[in-house]
Amino acid sequence: MGPTSDDITREALARYARVPLLRDQHLLELIAGRYRDFGAVMQVNSEVMADVPQGATSLINQEGSAPGIRLVSDGVPIFALPGVPREMRAMFSHEVLPELLREFQPETQATTVLRIAVEGESSVAMKLRDWEQGLPSGFSVAYLADLGNVLVKVTGPDEAIVNGLAHNAALLVGDSVYAIQNRSAPSTPLAAEVLGLLREKRHSIATAESLTGGGVGQALTDVPGSSENYLGGLITYSPALKTELLTVPSALIEKVGTVDPNVAYAMALGARRATGADWVVATTGVAGPGQSEGKSPGTVYLAVMGPAPDGGAGVQVRVVKLEIHRSDRDLVRRSTVIHALELVRRTLSELGNAVGQVEVTHLVTELRK
Amino acid sequence: MGPTSDDITREALARYARVPLLRDQHLLELIAGRYRDFGAVMQVNSEVMADVPQGATSLINQEGSAPGIRLVSDGVPIFALPGVPREMRAMFSHEVLPELLREFQPETQATTVLRIAVEGESSVAMKLRDWEQGLPSGFSVAYLADLGNVLVKVTGPDEAIVNGLAHNAALLVGDSVYAIQNRSAPSTPLAAEVLGLLREKRHSIATAESLTGGGVGQALTDVPGSSENYLGGLITYSPALKTELLTVPSALIEKVGTVDPNVAYAMALGARRATGADWVVATTGVAGPGQSEGKSPGTVYLAVMGPAPDGGAGVQVRVVKLEIHRSDRDLVRRSTVIHALELVRRTLSELGNAVGQVEVTHLVTELRK
Repeated sequence: MGPTSDDITREALARYARVPLLRDQHLLELIAGRYRDFGAVMQVNSEVMADVPQGATSLINQEGSAPGIRLVSDGVPIFALPGVPREMRAMFSHEVLPELLREFQPETQATTVLRIAVEGESSVAMKLRDWEQGLPSGFSVAYLADLGNVLVKVTGPDEAIVNGLAHNAALLVGDSVYAIQNRSAPSTPLAAEVLGLLREKRHSIATAESLTGGGVGQALTDVPGSSENYLGGLITYSPALKTELLTVPSALIEKVGTVDPNVAYAMALGARRATGADWVVATTGVAGPGQSEGKSPGTVYLAVMGPAPDGGAGVQVRVVKLEIHRSDRDLVRRSTVIHALELVRRTLSELGNAVGQVEVTHLVTELRK
Repeated sequence: MGPTSDDITREALARYARVPLLRDQHLLELIAGRYRDFGAVMQVNSEVMADVPQGATSLINQEGSAPGIRLVSDGVPIFALPGVPREMRAMFSHEVLPELLREFQPETQATTVLRIAVEGESSVAMKLRDWEQGLPSGFSVAYLADLGNVLVKVTGPDEAIVNGLAHNAALLVGDSVYAIQNRSAPSTPLAAEVLGLLREKRHSIATAESLTGGGVGQALTDVPGSSENYLGGLITYSPALKTELLTVPSALIEKVGTVDPNVAYAMALGARRATGADWVVATTGVAGPGQSEGKSPGTVYLAVMGPAPDGGAGVQVRVVKLEIHRSDRDLVRRSTVIHALELVRRTLSELGNAVGQVEVTHLVTELRK
C-alpha cells in the first residue's frame, strides 16, 4: 500500500474488480497532512498512495502514511491493509474489526487471563489438570506461552463464573501468578506489576546490570510513569567498571571471576550506595553464545537488596542462581530480565523464590560490612 | 502441537487423514531428553506430544519440546509446526524449506541488500527513481521499511550485476547506507556496524541514558563480542542521578530542565570521566505519552563525544536535536536508540549528521574544563 514501485496492491485490486484506479484529491490532501504531522515533506512518488479503485473507500492509517482500501466486489468486502505490523494492527482494530463485529454479532463471551512468570507451560497445565476436567460445559481454557511467561485464558458465557474459575486456577498455580485480569484491561507486563508494588510502598528502585546490558532498566522504563519509582542504574559490562562504579573489590573478581554470587551481591550493594535507591536488582552471568570464565551460557546470578520486611533499619538480600539451559544469547538475556523482575516481585511480596532460582548462601562475609 | 488440552492439531490431522493416533516410544524418549537438556522434568501431560498420526513422521524442534508433524494425505504433504514463533521459524528452516527447495528447484537468484538508517522509505525511493527505471530486464527491487530502518533488496539472475546495481544505488542514497550485503550473510544491525568501526580503531564506548533507560546499552550488548568495545554505562533516569553519577550541575537542571542540549552535553562529559571510555553517547528527552517539563513527547537531545578526528589530544562533540513527531512512548524510545547509534556511526565515519546539529550555547562554562 506504500509509495514504492513494488507496492502493487492498488493496481491488483483494480484489475481484479475490473475498475479504473482514480486519484482521490481529498485523500491526497490527508496524506500530505500526515507527512506534515511527522515533520516531513511529501515526495512526488508518494502521491500514488491516493490512488483508489473506483467505488472503493480508503481506510485511515493512524500510525503511518499509507491508507488502506475497502473494496466490495461481487458482494464480498475486501480489505487491503499496509504490511508494517503496527500500522496493520491499528487499522485492523479501528477499521476492519468494528465491521466484522457488526456483521457477525458474535456471542458475548467473558474472558479472564492469568499472567504467570518464569514457570513452564506444561508445569502450569499439570497443576490445572483436575480443575480443567471440572470446567462447566460452555467454559474453556487456552494456554499461550511466550519466553518466561504463560497466559491462561478462561472463557465462557458468564463473567462471574469465569472470574471464579480463574481465581480457583490462580490458587492452584500458586505464587507465580502475578496478575489476574479481564481481557478488556490493558495487559500488565511484569515490570508494571513490580512498579505498582513499589508505588504502594513509596519505595524507589535502581538497577546494576552486567550480562543484560541495560535490559532490566529498559523493561522498567517501558512502563509509562516509571520515573516515579525507577531512579536509574549502572551498566557495568567490563570487570573494571564493576570495581570503579560499583566498588566490587578487584581482589574478589581476580579470585572468583565476575560470574559469581558474591559479585552479584557486591554489585547490588555498590549500586544501592551509588544511587540511594531503596531497592536494587543486580545481574551478572554468561550470555553466550560461547563460554566465559569457563562457565556455560545461561549461568547467571541475581541479587536483590532492599529494606527489611519488618520495616526496621535492617537490609534484606536474596542472591539466586539461574541455570538457563540455552545457548542462545538473546534467549539467555531476555530470560534473565524476566527472572530479575520476578525476583524483585517475590521479594517485595514476601513470597518464596521461583522455580529454578537457587538461593545462594555461601557469601563472603567481609562484603556484608 | 504442545502439551495442553487446547493443542488439538494432532487429533485434527489424524481425523482428517482417517488414521489412528499412535504413541511413538522413540519420540517419547527424545522429548524426555529435551526436557532434561533444559534442566526440567517431563510431566505426564507432556507425553501426548509423542502421539503421531499413523504413517506420519515427526519433525525435530531444535528450540523447544513440541515436535512437528509431516503427514502425506492423498499425495499432498502437510506440515504442522508449533506456534511459538522462534520454534516455528527454526523448524521451517531445518525441516520444511529443504524439502520445498528439493521439490521445486527455484531458479537461483542473487540478492544484495542495502541497509539504511534513519531515512524514510519514500525519501529513499525518490533518490532511486531514475536508477529503478534503468534496471535491466529480469532485475528487480523491493523495499522493506521498519522503524528507523529501510532495506532495499536488489534481485536478479547474475550476482555481479546485482552487486554493481546495489552499489550504484548506495551511491545515490548516500551517507545513510550503513551496510551492503548479500542475502546469505547474517544481517548486520546498526549496533554491530558501530562496534565494528570501534574495533577497527581499538576504541571503547560507554552510554549515558535518560529517556531510553538502558535501550542503547541493550542494543550494543545484543551483539556477541560487544564486551570487546562496550564498557558499560549509566542510566540516569531521575534528575538527581544525573547530578550524582554524571556531575550534571544541579544549577543547570534547575535553570533549563533535563530536556536540553546542555544537559546531553554534560551527561556525555560526565560519563566519559566516570567510565574512561574513548567514546560516549548520551540521550535525554521526553518519551511520553504526555508532555514533560512543558515539552512534547519526541523532543530529544543526543550528544556524542570522542577523540578528535585528527588523532590529537582534543575532543570532538556533536549535540543534535531530534523531533520525533509521534506520541507513542515505545516508538519514541526505539527511534531514539536508532538515532543515537547512527549519530555514533556518522561521527566515527566523519560523515555529516542525519538531523540538525544543535549548538550548545548556554552551557555553564565550568563544564568545559
